[in-house]
Amino acid sequence: MLTRTPDRTLTDQLAERFAERIRARLLPAGARLPSVRECARQQGVSPHTVVAAYDKLLAQGLVQAQRQRGFFVRDLGQKVPPAQAEQAPAAINTEAAPGTLQGAMGAARAAGSRINATALIRGMFHQPSARPQPGAGVLPMAWLQEARFLSAAVRKVAASGALDQGSFSYGEPMGDAGLREALARRLGGQQIPATAQQIITTMGATQALDIVSRALLKAGDPVLVEEPGWSVEFARLDALGMRVLPVPRGPDGPDLAVMARLCELHSPRLFVSVSVLHNPTGYSLSPASAHRILQLAQQHDFYIAEDDTYGHIAPEHATRLSALDGLARTIYVSGFAKILAPNWRIGYLAAPPHLVERLLDTKLLSTLTTPSLLEKALALCIEQGQLRRHGERIRLALAQARARSVQLALEAGCTFAAEPAGMFGWVDTGVDTDVLAQRMLDEGYLIAPGALFHATRQPCTLMRINFGTTQEPAFWRAFRSSL
Amino acid sequence: MLTRTPDRTLTDQLAERFAERIRARLLPAGARLPSVRECARQQGVSPHTVVAAYDKLLAQGLVQAQRQRGFFVRDLGQKVPPAQAEQAPAAINTEAAPGTLQGAMGAARAAGSRINATALIRGMFHQPSARPQPGAGVLPMAWLQEARFLSAAVRKVAASGALDQGSFSYGEPMGDAGLREALARRLGGQQIPATAQQIITTMGATQALDIVSRALLKAGDPVLVEEPGWSVEFARLDALGMRVLPVPRGPDGPDLAVMARLCELHSPRLFVSVSVLHNPTGYSLSPASAHRILQLAQQHDFYIAEDDTYGHIAPEHATRLSALDGLARTIYVSGFAKILAPNWRIGYLAAPPHLVERLLDTKLLSTLTTPSLLEKALALCIEQGQLRRHGERIRLALAQARARSVQLALEAGCTFAAEPAGMFGWVDTGVDTDVLAQRMLDEGYLIAPGALFHATRQPCTLMRINFGTTQEPAFWRAFRSSL
Repeated sequence: MLTRTPDRTLTDQLAERFAERIRARLLPAGARLPSVRECARQQGVSPHTVVAAYDKLLAQGLVQAQRQRGFFVRDLGQKVPPAQAEQAPAAINTEAAPGTLQGAMGAARAAGSRINATALIRGMFHQPSARPQPGAGVLPMAWLQEARFLSAAVRKVAASGALDQGSFSYGEPMGDAGLREALARRLGGQQIPATAQQIITTMGATQALDIVSRALLKAGDPVLVEEPGWSVEFARLDALGMRVLPVPRGPDGPDLAVMARLCELHSPRLFVSVSVLHNPTGYSLSPASAHRILQLAQQHDFYIAEDDTYGHIAPEHATRLSALDGLARTIYVSGFAKILAPNWRIGYLAAPPHLVERLLDTKLLSTLTTPSLLEKALALCIEQGQLRRHGERIRLALAQARARSVQLALEAGCTFAAEPAGMFGWVDTGVDTDVLAQRMLDEGYLIAPGALFHATRQPCTLMRINFGTTQEPAFWRAFRSSL
Repeated sequence: MLTRTPDRTLTDQLAERFAERIRARLLPAGARLPSVRECARQQGVSPHTVVAAYDKLLAQGLVQAQRQRGFFVRDLGQKVPPAQAEQAPAAINTEAAPGTLQGAMGAARAAGSRINATALIRGMFHQPSARPQPGAGVLPMAWLQEARFLSAAVRKVAASGALDQGSFSYGEPMGDAGLREALARRLGGQQIPATAQQIITTMGATQALDIVSRALLKAGDPVLVEEPGWSVEFARLDALGMRVLPVPRGPDGPDLAVMARLCELHSPRLFVSVSVLHNPTGYSLSPASAHRILQLAQQHDFYIAEDDTYGHIAPEHATRLSALDGLARTIYVSGFAKILAPNWRIGYLAAPPHLVERLLDTKLLSTLTTPSLLEKALALCIEQGQLRRHGERIRLALAQARARSVQLALEAGCTFAAEPAGMFGWVDTGVDTDVLAQRMLDEGYLIAPGALFHATRQPCTLMRINFGTTQEPAFWRAFRSSL
């Protein structure tokens, strides 16, 4: 709530609140501000205050007025010189098969509400208040901070000769050899047959997925993705000029009938899949579905990028495409951001031998190498068993938090669109979660509206919750009062 | 030289030597192995040994025999499934204006000798022997190791709360705030008006340049580059599907007449320039040339990426485009790999305010954030003046090494194609340096043949030497005996 203070008027506070959201993309370009009357009611201020605040935003160039229609967030990209601004419309004219992301994004661009694709990712860094954030993609910091062994490992590497050895040359292109050996053993335990020579370390799973798409695809190539899915992956593929083909994701895996039809129609080059503890649904692939996907891949000659970002919190013996396939046409991708130190940005990929050189070239062209200091420290934590024990603690804490959060969500009148599992809940609220998201921001909470997980952004009553950060009744009280 | 040992035959040793070079791309796909007679003479072995060694390579699938023509290095990419292998030919059919890299690379691909683009970069990581490597892109490790303050800084950050603070969330998308403040002050000292809010940290200057091209360009866009130039930049732009337009680089800057004509013909979107201590020539931009480039950029509406990788070893008061332009259409790029810890991968860009959001989005899509531990340690070294003093020592050591290397090069019969300056010498040897490079490898030296710095790879008598690693007479003796 806004409160009058001696040094800041309500108008200033309201204008600043909107300005902040516009800059953080929480109000995307093209979005309409609430009507003056509605905003006044929501915020408990006079219409005069709202008009004055909107005028301030207008003066700052953050919004524009449209006669009879209200105030709309400006596309900040419009400040770009004319020759560059032409790029967006040009993209619309490229082949845009109906039902593909290209078509939908093109239409969205034409309507002037484009920037949305990175809204959630920006949100990951936006703390509207000190409260636990239900829309966050990371576990509570207090849980991760239990890993006190990390800073000891860094100090140990820094004190040994290893820092000097590793820092003063570019380092090993594939990544620290000790870490890659440890990762190969880990993968072996999951029945994924990778030697250290098939493993390349990366700046988080994010760079691994980026490298895979850059190395294997060229602009215009069709790529299968899961919907709902991780919007950053959609956004990256779109930015690289790929044709994104969404396949509905169900409890057992992607909708195989839709997938087969898209294969016939578009001859995709790649399928990107979060097979285990899928984001946002928490679904895990069934063995039969995995087998059928690999048959389709064989038949239509495409690669698979298996994103196992949530592998550390997954049940044992989960089915992974890379294990069935033996890394023949599957590239396995994972990292440590969910369980250890998100900012260390340590990820990796394990690839079929014939692709390793090409993927390594792409890593070199994008960042050359990755910092060995952090990789050596992580290798130490793995070897000493600290990571394994830490993982067990996290899984236990998450299971307890999940039970509490599910209970609270049900009490708040939500239903679960997917059986609760892993880190995220896929919750039906019964109301438009885009609208809800703006209201919850007023309460100091960032939620992840369902529209962000769809390639074609449309009103949606679903939202993703992080079980680790939704176990407090205070959030659910605010949620109920915002419905 | 090969020497018979009890446990390894000469044949095995010779085959392994070639296999190693093929895997390291020092012998690129399509390259012809020396004739049996020539190889026998070079290596001081019998023709029988050579034939046996070549047969081994054939059996390993590393080379293929062509009737009457000899043995050729196989394109390892051929092992890729058919659908993927189609990609290379497809690229040839895209618009390939005469004189562009696309045309030349297309032709090279058609001839089956493509992979070369990353040969030098692979070479940076390939140590054929323990000797100082004249082709290397980094200063001698012993010089960099003088920066003992680095590991102290890491330990200090690790011991403080900062490691915990920084590691357990994704961190600041723009990069560590303290480092960005320090960089803004540094740029201010160079008359480049950047606030910390215009600075984004990256994984080395490499990622900064990658981000700029991904954010501002789309596949097929024409880009001006300098020739000779840094082949990794050519390779990256080519991999992103850009049309690379080389402009000859002279002592004062790019050839302005050629540049103006290319602007008229192709309407480029971006010009990538190493303005100060250009790689490989060591040339630095004149004020008049800088002014004229900015006029062209204005007139034809393109951006400029100014790569100031060698800024730390540059003379004071060097002319920078970003200073003249005030970061209006120039994006300044630099890093610390040349002076401090190459493996830390700390680089940054400073951009016009209206581009910051777009560039930041691209960083997020490719690596999310960058590790703050290393950024904080570097900020500490800058604040305490250690970096400045270290830079002074490096510049002094380099000046002394340069004087010695120039003397030795001249005595070896070389001439300098460019006035010696900075880190690299651009040397005319009078012989084909591609052939020389293979001979020098036999002596345990990796050199950087001139062809690698050209967008259109053709025989060339020039080579780039690193002044820091060519001050020993032993190298020049080996050089003379290989001519």
